[in-house]
Amino acid sequence: MMSVKFRKLALIGIGLIGSSIALAARRQGLAEMIAISTRKSETLEEARALNLGDIYTLDAAEAVRGADLVILCAPVGAYEAIAKAIAPALEPGAILSDVGSVKAHVVKVVGPHVPAGVSFIPGHPIAGTEHSGPSAGFAELFAGRWCILTPQPDVPQAQTEKLAAFWEGMGSDVEIMEAGHHDMVLAITSHIPHLIAYNIVGTADDLETVTKSEVIKFSAGGFRDFTRIAASDPVMWRDVFLTNREAVLEMLGRFLEDLSVLQRAVDSGDGPALESIFTRTRAIRRSIISAGQETAAPDFGRPHE
Amino acid sequence: MMSVKFRKLALIGIGLIGSSIALAARRQGLAEMIAISTRKSETLEEARALNLGDIYTLDAAEAVRGADLVILCAPVGAYEAIAKAIAPALEPGAILSDVGSVKAHVVKVVGPHVPAGVSFIPGHPIAGTEHSGPSAGFAELFAGRWCILTPQPDVPQAQTEKLAAFWEGMGSDVEIMEAGHHDMVLAITSHIPHLIAYNIVGTADDLETVTKSEVIKFSAGGFRDFTRIAASDPVMWRDVFLTNREAVLEMLGRFLEDLSVLQRAVDSGDGPALESIFTRTRAIRRSIISAGQETAAPDFGRPHE
Ligand SMILES: NC(=O)c1ccc[n+]([C@@H]2O[C@H](COP(=O)([O-])OP(=O)(O)OC[C@H]3O[C@@H](n4cnc5c(N)ncnc54)[C@H](OP(=O)(O)O)[C@@H]3O)[C@@H](O)[C@H]2O)c1
Ligand SMILES: NC(=O)c1ccc[n+]([C@@H]2O[C@H](COP(=O)([O-])OP(=O)(O)OC[C@H]3O[C@@H](n4cnc5c(N)ncnc54)[C@H](OP(=O)(O)O)[C@@H]3O)[C@@H](O)[C@H]2O)c1
Repeated sequence: MMSVKFRKLALIGIGLIGSSIALAARRQGLAEMIAISTRKSETLEEARALNLGDIYTLDAAEAVRGADLVILCAPVGAYEAIAKAIAPALEPGAILSDVGSVKAHVVKVVGPHVPAGVSFIPGHPIAGTEHSGPSAGFAELFAGRWCILTPQPDVPQAQTEKLAAFWEGMGSDVEIMEAGHHDMVLAITSHIPHLIAYNIVGTADDLETVTKSEVIKFSAGGFRDFTRIAASDPVMWRDVFLTNREAVLEMLGRFLEDLSVLQRAVDSGDGPALESIFTRTRAIRRSIISAGQETAAPDFGRPHE
Repeated sequence: MMSVKFRKLALIGIGLIGSSIALAARRQGLAEMIAISTRKSETLEEARALNLGDIYTLDAAEAVRGADLVILCAPVGAYEAIAKAIAPALEPGAILSDVGSVKAHVVKVVGPHVPAGVSFIPGHPIAGTEHSGPSAGFAELFAGRWCILTPQPDVPQAQTEKLAAFWEGMGSDVEIMEAGHHDMVLAITSHIPHLIAYNIVGTADDLETVTKSEVIKFSAGGFRDFTRIAASDPVMWRDVFLTNREAVLEMLGRFLEDLSVLQRAVDSGDGPALESIFTRTRAIRRSIISAGQETAAPDFGRPHE
């Protein structure tokens, strides 16, 4: 594994993902200096109190000046304005990356502002929790998780390797992928699960026949599992669905087709069909556990007193 | 809290739930003797090797003879045949209960076989894991979880109180409910979440544009959360959907209506609608955590190396 040390790392946005990068990069010695910029001064002060970096500024252009690695860590909807603001300050030879949950849209809105000589390599760590803000981060977040990089056509191979080494330094495995393909893969592995989870939690909340108190008390029957991702940041997820519309609608169409098959099987009391559908899904969890992407402990290892 | 000790507890079926009752009842001294019966001799031998009880038999009628508490712990589809087999051996004054995930159907198929003088109090502990079989059980499974009891009209109050004390002795809180209402509550808190989880795992498995290996690698984006309940026992879940058809179809209809609202919001790029739907769902997770039904740790407390 190649080792790497950036001179100045600039993080624009310092929530769960930005603060986890700051902590991991410092612990692993991946940057000599960390500059942090965000929108609100309270958030900047929170980051300072947590001692996440070396330089704190509300001016994103100032943060990126002299940086050889810039990572956008804000919600995707804020990217275009940030790109415009920082473009004049980006140094030739710098790598510009991000952590946004969609990629084709990022290429489209940020790409046109990237100055010649700057290597634009959008990225996405497949790691997170349902918490947000600077205090939610921790240095181990990326360990054992994948990070997808989508280097743009003109980027020198050596720059992509440097960025890959940075993520590997934080414990991740790196996969190179085309931006459009990333968006299809994440639509099914992340965006549709979130949409469904938000939806069922909303449905449960609206029922008249079943009270909210009953939903809460008896949630251990399965429902509570869905409430975790349905507690994720609303603005971040609004932006994901606004910017990955086509892939999400395509995958949702597939999901709904399959669901109508299941609905018919329930309606007609087709036991063999139900049993066979429920049997094939076990294998995939076993594979996820063997691939090191999930705990083998029952019930996610939740404590039982 | 009333304390209770049964003379002879008979468990018919000794998988996750049956073995957890055996372990908890013994640890808490809730029964002088535990008789275990199941369908297959391998399973009976496994239970014996785990030292789960005092008497082991493939003959359910033999297990219940002389028992003052009988709990059916098999998949619901097996109940009617079991009820017929044990009816002649049930003692007057005994309590007949179960742990099945549906209740109106249980009343319908077991009820007619219950001899006069036997108190029929169907039950359902809202606790479980995705694992099955006698070795999956543990004594703490019911601690801090709810158990719903649906006593039939002619049952003496004192019998319901005795059974409630048994569950409280294993650490549960007890709620009395009408069987039909139970089935509506569980349709939304448990059955629909399982149906949706099985469905999305199936959809992901079938895609041609996204490989199975990609689904596995990048599952930490949310998908893996759904694979836990989609790894639950196929026979048990087949039986749930065969026997709670109406409530499941009604709740599924609500879910689909809400999903089409979300689908339209994504299609038309309606940011404010998406953000407002995503905002209201956070509160319910907080309530579930405060109610002690979920861990407050991020990511379910999954280990991060
Ligand atoms: N959460 C996950 O599980 C996860 C996983 C992988 C990737 N991602 C991606 O990571 C990015 C950040 O997500 P997160 O979970 O870290 O969110 P978060 O905890 O809500 O943090 C977002 C950060 O961006 C800042 N910000 C918002 N608008 C800004 C603007 N216009 N200019 C500069 N900073 C701004 C916020 O600070 P202020 O308080 O100053 O507004 C905050 O520091 C998103 O693009 C998301 O798609 C998230
Ligand atoms: N899993 C959960 O999370 C959960 C939660 C609450 C309630 N429940 C309910 O609890 C019950 C048992 O579920 P479980 O999770 O314990 O399932 P499990 O681990 O698969 O165990 C089922 C047990 O029933 C036995 N069995 C199957 N058919 C039988 C028959 N015809 N006669 C006698 N025994 C038979 C099985 O043994 P053999 O090997 O001998 O067939 C096994 O011991 C179900 O009614 C379910 O709805 C489950």
